Amino acid sequence: MLFLQKISIMIFIILFSGGIFLTSSELIRAQETIDSGKRFRARELGIIIGNYPTGKYNAITDVAGVKVGHVTLISGSGKLVPGKGPVRTGVTAILPHGGNIWQEKVPAGGYILNGCGEMTGFIWMEESGYIETPILLTNTLNVGTVMDGVIDYMIKTVPEVGISDDTVNPIVAECDDSTLNDIQGRHVTQEMVLKAIESASDGPVEEGCVGGGTGMICYEFKGGIGTSSRVLPEKEGSYTAGVLVMANQGRRRDLIIKGLPVGKEITDLLSASRKGYGSIIIVVATDAPLTSRQLNRISKRASLGLARTGTTANNGSGEIILSFSTAYKIPHYPEEFTCDVKILSDTHINPLFEAVEEATEEAVINALCAATTMKGRDDNIVYTLPLDRVKMIMKKYGLQ
Amino acid sequence: MLFLQKISIMIFIILFSGGIFLTSSELIRAQETIDSGKRFRARELGIIIGNYPTGKYNAITDVAGVKVGHVTLISGSGKLVPGKGPVRTGVTAILPHGGNIWQEKVPAGGYILNGCGEMTGFIWMEESGYIETPILLTNTLNVGTVMDGVIDYMIKTVPEVGISDDTVNPIVAECDDSTLNDIQGRHVTQEMVLKAIESASDGPVEEGCVGGGTGMICYEFKGGIGTSSRVLPEKEGSYTAGVLVMANQGRRRDLIIKGLPVGKEITDLLSASRKGYGSIIIVVATDAPLTSRQLNRISKRASLGLARTGTTANNGSGEIILSFSTAYKIPHYPEEFTCDVKILSDTHINPLFEAVEEATEEAVINALCAATTMKGRDDNIVYTLPLDRVKMIMKKYGLQ
Amino acid sequence: MLFLQKISIMIFIILFSGGIFLTSSELIRAQETIDSGKRFRARELGIIIGNYPTGKYNAITDVAGVKVGHVTLISGSGKLVPGKGPVRTGVTAILPHGGNIWQEKVPAGGYILNGCGEMTGFIWMEESGYIETPILLTNTLNVGTVMDGVIDYMIKTVPEVGISDDTVNPIVAECDDSTLNDIQGRHVTQEMVLKAIESASDGPVEEGCVGGGTGMICYEFKGGIGTSSRVLPEKEGSYTAGVLVMANQGRRRDLIIKGLPVGKEITDLLSASRKGYGSIIIVVATDAPLTSRQLNRISKRASLGLARTGTTANNGSGEIILSFSTAYKIPHYPEEFTCDVKILSDTHINPLFEAVEEATEEAVINALCAATTMKGRDDNIVYTLPLDRVKMIMKKYGLQ
Amino acid sequence: MLFLQKISIMIFIILFSGGIFLTSSELIRAQETIDSGKRFRARELGIIIGNYPTGKYNAITDVAGVKVGHVTLISGSGKLVPGKGPVRTGVTAILPHGGNIWQEKVPAGGYILNGCGEMTGFIWMEESGYIETPILLTNTLNVGTVMDGVIDYMIKTVPEVGISDDTVNPIVAECDDSTLNDIQGRHVTQEMVLKAIESASDGPVEEGCVGGGTGMICYEFKGGIGTSSRVLPEKEGSYTAGVLVMANQGRRRDLIIKGLPVGKEITDLLSASRKGYGSIIIVVATDAPLTSRQLNRISKRASLGLARTGTTANNGSGEIILSFSTAYKIPHYPEEFTCDVKILSDTHINPLFEAVEEATEEAVINALCAATTMKGRDDNIVYTLPLDRVKMIMKKYGLQ
Repeated sequence: MLFLQKISIMIFIILFSGGIFLTSSELIRAQETIDSGKRFRARELGIIIGNYPTGKYNAITDVAGVKVGHVTLISGSGKLVPGKGPVRTGVTAILPHGGNIWQEKVPAGGYILNGCGEMTGFIWMEESGYIETPILLTNTLNVGTVMDGVIDYMIKTVPEVGISDDTVNPIVAECDDSTLNDIQGRHVTQEMVLKAIESASDGPVEEGCVGGGTGMICYEFKGGIGTSSRVLPEKEGSYTAGVLVMANQGRRRDLIIKGLPVGKEITDLLSASRKGYGSIIIVVATDAPLTSRQLNRISKRASLGLARTGTTANNGSGEIILSFSTAYKIPHYPEEFTCDVKILSDTHINPLFEAVEEATEEAVINALCAATTMKGRDDNIVYTLPLDRVKMIMKKYGLQ
Repeated sequence: MLFLQKISIMIFIILFSGGIFLTSSELIRAQETIDSGKRFRARELGIIIGNYPTGKYNAITDVAGVKVGHVTLISGSGKLVPGKGPVRTGVTAILPHGGNIWQEKVPAGGYILNGCGEMTGFIWMEESGYIETPILLTNTLNVGTVMDGVIDYMIKTVPEVGISDDTVNPIVAECDDSTLNDIQGRHVTQEMVLKAIESASDGPVEEGCVGGGTGMICYEFKGGIGTSSRVLPEKEGSYTAGVLVMANQGRRRDLIIKGLPVGKEITDLLSASRKGYGSIIIVVATDAPLTSRQLNRISKRASLGLARTGTTANNGSGEIILSFSTAYKIPHYPEEFTCDVKILSDTHINPLFEAVEEATEEAVINALCAATTMKGRDDNIVYTLPLDRVKMIMKKYGLQ
Repeated sequence: MLFLQKISIMIFIILFSGGIFLTSSELIRAQETIDSGKRFRARELGIIIGNYPTGKYNAITDVAGVKVGHVTLISGSGKLVPGKGPVRTGVTAILPHGGNIWQEKVPAGGYILNGCGEMTGFIWMEESGYIETPILLTNTLNVGTVMDGVIDYMIKTVPEVGISDDTVNPIVAECDDSTLNDIQGRHVTQEMVLKAIESASDGPVEEGCVGGGTGMICYEFKGGIGTSSRVLPEKEGSYTAGVLVMANQGRRRDLIIKGLPVGKEITDLLSASRKGYGSIIIVVATDAPLTSRQLNRISKRASLGLARTGTTANNGSGEIILSFSTAYKIPHYPEEFTCDVKILSDTHINPLFEAVEEATEEAVINALCAATTMKGRDDNIVYTLPLDRVKMIMKKYGLQ
Repeated sequence: MLFLQKISIMIFIILFSGGIFLTSSELIRAQETIDSGKRFRARELGIIIGNYPTGKYNAITDVAGVKVGHVTLISGSGKLVPGKGPVRTGVTAILPHGGNIWQEKVPAGGYILNGCGEMTGFIWMEESGYIETPILLTNTLNVGTVMDGVIDYMIKTVPEVGISDDTVNPIVAECDDSTLNDIQGRHVTQEMVLKAIESASDGPVEEGCVGGGTGMICYEFKGGIGTSSRVLPEKEGSYTAGVLVMANQGRRRDLIIKGLPVGKEITDLLSASRKGYGSIIIVVATDAPLTSRQLNRISKRASLGLARTGTTANNGSGEIILSFSTAYKIPHYPEEFTCDVKILSDTHINPLFEAVEEATEEAVINALCAATTMKGRDDNIVYTLPLDRVKMIMKKYGLQ
């Protein structure tokens, strides 16, 4: 009750300070939406980003074969007891295909816009030009355990690993969810990693406060997992590009949605306890037949899409991008010297660049649209992006 | 009231045309502006980008000591006769300070968003962490001659170069102006390079169709040189960051101005003869005391500002960024083992990141705002950005 | 005279055997040395590499403040039971100084000669230009647990980590010791990491089959930890450079010691079970006041020293180099905008480059000289470098 | 005469200082060789580097299709008159194949061991993963003119360049020959570049004081162009790797030949006027079907071969490596989206790594073996490597 009043007052004050004006009936509707927790994807709100159509699910899984699995941990409340809780975290697994990734590696590339973060396995991925394990996303202090979980999974599927076969360098990336989560507790266990990997599926991808994104914060709203995809027309190759983000980056005032200064319009709903402004992990998948060099290039384009949501790439932020192609497999110790591959010519790559930029921009907005208000550690609250107000802002700027 | 109706009508018509509607009187006014050649900087049009105030000139020269000089070549008309003309090109020189740059080098860093371009000297700059010559911007095929011109200048100011002193690797960057210019002719001579360097001055910087930017095209409007600056408040260090661009990048439909899809609104005024979509050179100056590592970071932020103008960083585009600091000098073969420097802590760098993003975004828009319609080689015409229509678009989207 | 004849005879016999000839008495002595396990450092054998003198301990700890700690795990024998043993592994901790590294970070840089390996924290180190945790070396599959151990240590020393302070990205690097060790078992625990860090000391550094180097193989001889240092004369700055390697790289035939083809001379003593040819982690410490850019350069020089021991940097090998300076500290969230640092001029850096090359080359040879024959998993045996035969080879080539 | 006596005295003194002893008859013979100018390639002297056999010419041209052309400029003597002479310089052209390189680009990669140097076009090569022009080697201050010469050549062969086709970024690399040459004079003209390119041929490659290597200095002996090749056996793919160097790097005391400290043995024959210690350009060709990523890896291996000749990669030295494959062509604006390529698996790349290391090491030694004593600017003399003394050293160390 008190909470509702505070919101009203804040919005009232915004009226005089240059923000968007809401009529009282609109205010009520907006509040109802917040309370009901009803969420929409960006497109459902009329936020159409870019020129290309999306795939069937508007998700990274629109790239055939790609699977996503989440394990979400939400338990406890109140005061932080390090090692006990409250727990607001999780792990997300992305599989480039449903087969044995070790035996059928996929080409990969990456880009580090800002390196205040970790993606283990990045060094080997850049050298080899491929990935050979699932990709896992989790919180910063859980990277070690999640690596161990991936190793468990690899040993389970390839028992020779580290015996008669090579050892493995898992790909685990992270953001800091410590505003909401008992991050010292490292609550994601090896078993949960296995579960995230083994439960991964194609089809629609759950977004928002799930998996690795559970406790994340984005532009000082509640963030988390977001995804989007684009499909090129036949004359540009019919390729699909899908993006999944774990979005934890940005200051409020920087937030741009479809060009509009949403972060400057919504200056309330801030979390007093937010410590820093960082990090996003971006994973790009495509069925276009690309080399690792081209996937490095693709990764840089994701940073341009991200930029259009307003990110400054702050000093303490880890903006790390990993891209892979499902178009061909790289065999494990093939007998033949050479393998035949069909590679996209760089002169035909521009539509794909654009598709990745669009899907990245939309994936970030989708993360914001899906995530809901969360109370976590020490009763810290991080608010959801108020979708009605976003619609009002769009109306104000003539976009609706 | 009238305003609301106009918006409604416009949106109605857009439905059928996909572009912005202009009333006949507006059309006349817009055309008059084009004809009169009256140009304004972005700010004069009410396009205020970002949060920080500009420096005195809103130019790279707001960083104390930085000088800019242009030599502009416009001659001939009609059919291209390779080696003869028409000539629409030039050279721009940026000096980090007014002293002897060889003896007093300045720290520098860079970033290559897309490498379809050339910046000679980049390799040595990245290794040494400094620059020791002026920075020159010109057309692609003139890079060799301009290097020779810089060598002439260096020999003139440091006669020992290549005799009892080291040899020199000049910094020369380029974009392709061949839609308008007889680029095979390499009309920029060594003498013109000396003139650009020696005439460089502080104070206001000429923008648009001048110097290296003379024949450039940006988002399929006439592009060229643009500049902007930002000054941080005292509590953030009072530092200044200035940006100068030679803007030759982008497809029309990608152009975004202050978040608005201007490139989708103005779908006419295209040049039939435009061949490709590439390149921008961005030079960032600051008086903040940064190391080369930090200047590499700064350079990446310029790419984020650029992204907000819509750039896709096409395959054939060279987006190359060079940043330098004027805060301290690096001596040439000092006797002492060490030198004392005062370095900005990375934990205080965020405002500067933001300032560079803002100034880069505005510098690109300023290039578009300043450049005027040009007819060049083979009577190819590249149109100026119609400022009245930009104002209309801003009005349409509630920004004015 | 006698010497000349012996050479002739030996060369004659080499003609037919391709290896070095040992007289029967020499053979006996060599064998006795192997049996007795008496080992010497390279210098004690007369293998003097390079031009500069070593520090007091000829170890990385000659750089004042640097500490090294090992935890060595040797248990079990016979057939591999994954998860049980035999265990031949461990963990090594390197501390840049004895204080709180989080509060007093040190400048750092790196280089990846070949990236088939892992060094977690590398991304953040390259971005920030410093390290803020100890450096840990272990086996490939233990990286996750060791990261967790470092996080435990950081929480213990900085309890605010992940609560009111930032999260931490530990630096953990690895080589594959699975020829001798039950690597799937991940026998290094978090407690052992704490022990390695907390027991780290200055003074002499144990070499060979200790810590992370316990189960490592180098040029198909027993490898492991090696270290060396160099001290520059006063006229070159009096700086010290120290190197520690965890050496697990190389094929036999490639081994070069002080220019001599030792690997081609000693073609026996091979391990039938050796699977691959990979990896070395090189850590360089110096008290010269260097920036991260300069420490990147230093790291590349370590690769040149490594090359002189014969390494090809095979496809499956991870040659990763990390360098840090102890000359100044980087504070954690300083209030002041800037800090004053004294930086070595690049024009005075050459002696340091050379020192690092020399110390790296010697550290690898020291690892070989110190490590002793080890029987491990599945009774796989990896032989020690036979020092008497090395002496014979040196004599043969006129170096003794 | 006086010169002969000085040599004798020096060698006499070396006798007591740890260097190699020459009998008087040997001295005479050595001197005769120096005087006669009779030179041998390393292999002819019994210096066999590595394990793999060479190609037919032991040259980069053993890679089928590769062509090399030199233009050598030697004129004038005595005191330097800047702009006039004496002239001791030239230009070398390397063509990946005999066809139209613009239309049939070849995959390429590179590595910068130390960046105090220039290779124009490097940025575009790394981005695109190919080269599309010949590779030119010349002196530092002539890079601009040589770029212009390459543009002339490109316009001549592809007249549409910069008109209806793209512009061109030539690949021109350099070393500093100013100890012997009037480098300010920039005596290499555009016409000479055309001549070097158009006269390029397959078959044996002239080494030593030719082309771009004319005035170069290597380990303080006369340096210049050197080349070597390796052919893999059928079971390793039958691939050929060829290397060409323009060798201008190193201090005397660092020189190692086949592991032996030749630079410490020959401490006389120094040039009093040598200013710095820098730079080598290394070009690697192979017919193995590699991607640009793999060619980046190949380039790093060249640095390991170089390291074995003793190079420290001094601060002021530019060690730049470019590698290309002739195995497949990349078309210019192909209509098809994709092209089919056959790529070597990384798991089969190790022999090629080794081959490149061997050929690089030998190419540097070949440059030293071929180059002859040269008197240049201001009568500065740079001495040839005395081959007889090299043989004596090999004998001393039991290698002959």
